[in-house]
Amino acid sequence: MPRYEGVSPSVIRRLPRYYRFLEDLQRRDVHRISSRELSSLMNLTASQIRQDLNCFGGFGQQGYGYNVDALLSEIGNILGLSREYRSILIGAGNLGLAIAKHMSFESKGFNLIGIFDKNKELVGTPVRHLVISDINRLENFCKTFSPQAAILCIPKPAAQEIADKLIHLGIKGFWNFSHYDLTMDYPDIAVENVHLGDSLMTLCYQVSEILE
Amino acid sequence: MPRYEGVSPSVIRRLPRYYRFLEDLQRRDVHRISSRELSSLMNLTASQIRQDLNCFGGFGQQGYGYNVDALLSEIGNILGLSREYRSILIGAGNLGLAIAKHMSFESKGFNLIGIFDKNKELVGTPVRHLVISDINRLENFCKTFSPQAAILCIPKPAAQEIADKLIHLGIKGFWNFSHYDLTMDYPDIAVENVHLGDSLMTLCYQVSEILE
Repeated sequence: MPRYEGVSPSVIRRLPRYYRFLEDLQRRDVHRISSRELSSLMNLTASQIRQDLNCFGGFGQQGYGYNVDALLSEIGNILGLSREYRSILIGAGNLGLAIAKHMSFESKGFNLIGIFDKNKELVGTPVRHLVISDINRLENFCKTFSPQAAILCIPKPAAQEIADKLIHLGIKGFWNFSHYDLTMDYPDIAVENVHLGDSLMTLCYQVSEILE
Repeated sequence: MPRYEGVSPSVIRRLPRYYRFLEDLQRRDVHRISSRELSSLMNLTASQIRQDLNCFGGFGQQGYGYNVDALLSEIGNILGLSREYRSILIGAGNLGLAIAKHMSFESKGFNLIGIFDKNKELVGTPVRHLVISDINRLENFCKTFSPQAAILCIPKPAAQEIADKLIHLGIKGFWNFSHYDLTMDYPDIAVENVHLGDSLMTLCYQVSEILE
């Protein structure tokens, strides 16, 4: 996305949150909002909002505020949400199934086209519009359908091995829930680690600070 | 935790990751590690590691490295993981159940003592050592067992209302999976928001950068 080169990763990282709030405003039929109103909603300063959004050319007009629909659509474009990257899920345990059933991938740039597990008892189980496939079929599947992203919901020991394999099969991005930090030796691979345990420990620290 | 006052939130936020790596080393029977080895494992610089860990008094010895067991136990103490805060889960849908079944709360400072849902068809269903209770019983339950933390796995519209109620019932910390940013008007409440959708959008941006 050469148009936005030079925008800092921290601004990019805040965009999904802007997107979420703006989507909610649109759903509530709000089509125009001042930076002051948006800032109080999002618990940011108005000047931070102006600074963040100016990175992309400035959607706001003095005295008018932001056009919610235009801003939402532009942030969606920046994030690439209008694409449909084919994605597969590896590991249909409790967490994997919840992710598959709970998330609306389609609205976030991804399209779930396959679910794989090594547990033969799960193979054939329907999940949404799909059925769980045997992990042995992964290679053929990837060669036929060329998925671009993989969601890893498998235990740590299995994660590194399968990640290497998936990269060779053409996967470009990982949404990684395994307890393994995927620090890829491949510069052209995107990884988004979700460490739920780390988040819970952080909460524990905060609660213990309050209750001390 | 007055001993650690003045330690920056960003250092605190990195501690769970240290804890996770050190726990893994201990599991693999490694009891001593140099900052250089730890840094290559964690993909950090050795000087950042020394700087982070020196905040708490410096566990390393020149020429010896870090004592894995001592460091793990001390970081666990700082995070408060040896406590057992009583916690309840609100919302036994796909995500809530996965969280309840998948996480080992006990090793992270929390003890899950109740699961609540408003869906009468779910009430009575066993989940691990518990059964799902009717949300109508929440108030009595809290008065009797005084839980300190709540995990919110409910849709956005319900989240704010129930959060207010839970605070009045004595909850001090929220692990929040609802799509609502809990920005509490109560300074003494800890909140750890987990926005899985934001993480997925960030991955989408990264993948679209690679595939452009």
